Amino acid sequence: MRLFSYWRSSAAYRVRIALNLKGLVAEYVPVHLLRDGGEHLRPEFRETRPQGLVPVLEDGQAVLGQSLAIIEYLEEVHPQPPLLPSDPVERARVRGFAQYIACEIHPLNNLRVLRYLERELNLSDERRDEWYRHWIAQGLAALEASLGAGHATEFCFGARPTLADICLVPQMANARRFRCELSGYPTLVRIDEACRALPAFAEAAPERQPDAELPPPPAVGEGQDGGAER
Amino acid sequence: MRLFSYWRSSAAYRVRIALNLKGLVAEYVPVHLLRDGGEHLRPEFRETRPQGLVPVLEDGQAVLGQSLAIIEYLEEVHPQPPLLPSDPVERARVRGFAQYIACEIHPLNNLRVLRYLERELNLSDERRDEWYRHWIAQGLAALEASLGAGHATEFCFGARPTLADICLVPQMANARRFRCELSGYPTLVRIDEACRALPAFAEAAPERQPDAELPPPPAVGEGQDGGAER
Repeated sequence: MRLFSYWRSSAAYRVRIALNLKGLVAEYVPVHLLRDGGEHLRPEFRETRPQGLVPVLEDGQAVLGQSLAIIEYLEEVHPQPPLLPSDPVERARVRGFAQYIACEIHPLNNLRVLRYLERELNLSDERRDEWYRHWIAQGLAALEASLGAGHATEFCFGARPTLADICLVPQMANARRFRCELSGYPTLVRIDEACRALPAFAEAAPERQPDAELPPPPAVGEGQDGGAER
Repeated sequence: MRLFSYWRSSAAYRVRIALNLKGLVAEYVPVHLLRDGGEHLRPEFRETRPQGLVPVLEDGQAVLGQSLAIIEYLEEVHPQPPLLPSDPVERARVRGFAQYIACEIHPLNNLRVLRYLERELNLSDERRDEWYRHWIAQGLAALEASLGAGHATEFCFGARPTLADICLVPQMANARRFRCELSGYPTLVRIDEACRALPAFAEAAPERQPDAELPPPPAVGEGQDGGAER
């Protein structure tokens, strides 16, 4: 298998977590969404991947797009360990939580939308970030409420991670990146931390990917007084 | 079963089609998304439906949100006729097409987003409609390309409707409503027409729902010369 990914893509992050939870290995093929106007928009990428998006999972001859469709595929072909419960009502609850993130929060805050706000609507950085935080706040409040007061299980739906947690963790990473206030969502914060303590989640994190662009380490003699922070 | 729906919600429209294709009957409970600030935001609605969205399907004690999660549930509990193929790769292709609509096109163009553009960003009707048409055009082009040149089957994936068609038809209805140019997507237009010729799709259409708000019929003596069109 080959996974076409970008380190900061939260949809790719979901698939990376799912692969890790199932103990599957896919070759990591980086696709830079910013360089040269976006490598995902080049004809050689789009020819066989007409949605022009990452992630894409190639499994033999199959070329599969859309993170949740990819994860359902992995679940069907490699059922252990399961990422969905067995009961249909419980499966629907997990999928509904995941799809709330994938359909109601994330689409409003991804790169191409933020670019439209900047370039076509000439929004200032401040108003763009207001947009971002508005949808995050509305969305996380609904998710927190949907888990119920006094939610007691370690993960979103029980004692092991499901598709819901797989979608939650990248969304929370984005919220932190845009410095959203998270104190109103104590259940989500607790579950996110429990997930990130697991190797399957930790190793899927953006900064652990081969194409991650991290600030350079401090030069010799810098870094002791904080003056070298970038 | 009870379906909480709004006639113009395209996510509810998807569930209505799926119920019809499976020959299932659910009591129709209208939730007006505009009246009094939105009935879906009232405490009595949100108490048991914290996402505060339609559609919601209640099946006995189960309260299920998110249209694609609801349809997957119906598929699992009432497998005939199937809305997904049996092969995992084909299932992933159908789900990927459906999720492209549900995650990449529709979320940018729903009511709460258009309202934010109008009220928070003070966009004119013209610029709001540009936004709308931009995402429709980008999205439909990707969908048309993903089906491939010379696409020959009657529906998106074969000789009977699947989850892909269920998502396509409401999206095309929205595109027509906002007067998007559709001549560039002949395959999508053809499939949309084939679907709408089926009773399961026709009866799920917004204008056929009990809460539809249609222009009043022409008064006696009007309507012959076109002068009474509203």
